[in-house]
Amino acid sequence: MVTLPRARIMSGMRPTGRLHLGNYLGALENWVRLQDEYECFFSIVDWHALTTGYEDTSAIREDIREMAVDWLSAGLDPDRSTFYVQSRVKEVAELHLLLSMVTPVSWLERVPTYKDQLQQLAGKDINTYGFLGYPLLQTADIAIFKADFVPVGEDQLPHLELAREVVRRFNNFYGPVFPEPQAQLNQVTMLPGIDGRKMSKSYGNDIGLAATAEEIKGRVDLMITDPARIRKSDPGHPEVCTVHSFHGAFSREELPQIEADCRAGTIGCVQCKRNLAGRLQAAMAPLQERRRFYLENPGRVDEVLAAGSEKARRVAAATMNEVREAMKI
Amino acid sequence: MVTLPRARIMSGMRPTGRLHLGNYLGALENWVRLQDEYECFFSIVDWHALTTGYEDTSAIREDIREMAVDWLSAGLDPDRSTFYVQSRVKEVAELHLLLSMVTPVSWLERVPTYKDQLQQLAGKDINTYGFLGYPLLQTADIAIFKADFVPVGEDQLPHLELAREVVRRFNNFYGPVFPEPQAQLNQVTMLPGIDGRKMSKSYGNDIGLAATAEEIKGRVDLMITDPARIRKSDPGHPEVCTVHSFHGAFSREELPQIEADCRAGTIGCVQCKRNLAGRLQAAMAPLQERRRFYLENPGRVDEVLAAGSEKARRVAAATMNEVREAMKI
Repeated sequence: MVTLPRARIMSGMRPTGRLHLGNYLGALENWVRLQDEYECFFSIVDWHALTTGYEDTSAIREDIREMAVDWLSAGLDPDRSTFYVQSRVKEVAELHLLLSMVTPVSWLERVPTYKDQLQQLAGKDINTYGFLGYPLLQTADIAIFKADFVPVGEDQLPHLELAREVVRRFNNFYGPVFPEPQAQLNQVTMLPGIDGRKMSKSYGNDIGLAATAEEIKGRVDLMITDPARIRKSDPGHPEVCTVHSFHGAFSREELPQIEADCRAGTIGCVQCKRNLAGRLQAAMAPLQERRRFYLENPGRVDEVLAAGSEKARRVAAATMNEVREAMKI
Repeated sequence: MVTLPRARIMSGMRPTGRLHLGNYLGALENWVRLQDEYECFFSIVDWHALTTGYEDTSAIREDIREMAVDWLSAGLDPDRSTFYVQSRVKEVAELHLLLSMVTPVSWLERVPTYKDQLQQLAGKDINTYGFLGYPLLQTADIAIFKADFVPVGEDQLPHLELAREVVRRFNNFYGPVFPEPQAQLNQVTMLPGIDGRKMSKSYGNDIGLAATAEEIKGRVDLMITDPARIRKSDPGHPEVCTVHSFHGAFSREELPQIEADCRAGTIGCVQCKRNLAGRLQAAMAPLQERRRFYLENPGRVDEVLAAGSEKARRVAAATMNEVREAMKI
């Protein structure tokens, strides 16, 4: 029996500190699924964090650790996937430099997020060479593992298109070293924050991935429901209810019944929240259990990152040998 | 008795293939002198060669070897100086990436050579991210060895000023890791080509550092002298004579006499050339002898580059440990 090599997936997250349920449903849960079918490389991209956060780096190391614990809790499995810290794979910096030689400045300037972010973060001094080169660093992240697929959201498609163009140009000059990475558009559930806006730590409306059963209940209690519904018997409008959005993600099978009961006014918001809290607690229980293990065995987290980074480095080094041979340097 | 650490010098050359006498007097001869007083790091900067020459890299490896032989012939001593191939010190790429995070794009755009070169090399497609970042790569070259001094020509002063600004900004954010490198302006003899224009391989008017005694004589014979001087007894004009420029570099003590004889018409151009050829042959003899050794022991050249690159890597790695500690990544 022959085992065919699995296609490769590469993706990464900036170390922003503790993740929340929105990050879980928006990316992590998908990554956990991908582990069976693909050979996965997941990176905590601390160099990327510097492109916008170079002025204060004091939290990065702790943020990396917390993110690793969140990943492990969510079910990323170091025995099946490779996850690593970007800055521990120096070969990425080397490839970034080599790719920079064949990448027109105009290609980077026209990436839509570039001008967008310059405007959005106008208060920050991010008009740097590193920030301009950020999508090229992503290209190096992807190319160095010869990734076939990159799970992305719509907003990341231009970055992936740049990666494909750069890789194509490199291959044209020096021979076919890199596959052209394909976008794998996520079908993810967008989860609102408890106030109905986009879930974000900075809005204070998130539910942490590390939340205990008690904390989950407290956050659900605070959720904003249909403001037009005063009495329990008033007909509800699930389409404007945050609790209902969460049921859409965590009580999928019962959703038609929940919606019908709400519209009919046969279930009150208090009961509906109690049901949701139970669902959430049940869904998060396995994550909490894994988290407990890693909090009790903190050395294991460091081992996982060290071993993953070492494995990533070996793969990256092999690619770089090919790159140098192709470029004849 | 205490041995004080010597100040550090860093400089580099692009691997452009065989050097000529102009390169020798313009830089190498100065480097050879610096070896006694300073701890010197000399780099064959092959990554820099890619900033303008990424389209055809087929000659780089051979160019590196030839340059190494030229350096050794000229008297650079691997026992006293560290010389190495830039691309073998990956830490330079890492530092380049980290410095890119704190370097405003505008600082790079305003480097005078940037716009100049874009215009001069308009036929080449060098409007790349790598070409824009070229002076920053130089900054990384210098900073990673904590160089105190950089021997430069006037044209390189803006690059060094950028290096100083970048280093200062880094130190401001993360603490004093790097010294601010000082320019050490070379007092070098500018040697014309045999046709009186700037000496350049591309003009075909150079005298190779590897030229034999016979070849030196042949090149001197072709030198253009005072065109107004028809007969030997005509008074000559040394200020327009290429041979005289060479005497200025190689027959410094006799120069007043040579000039007087020329103006008086008491020495003919043929004799004057014969004298110069003798001088040149004598000056180049020790170089030819060293060259013979390395041509007969080609493995020694590879050993020198391997050992130098390994030593450079150790120094660079130590600096990078400090950099990562300072940046807390």
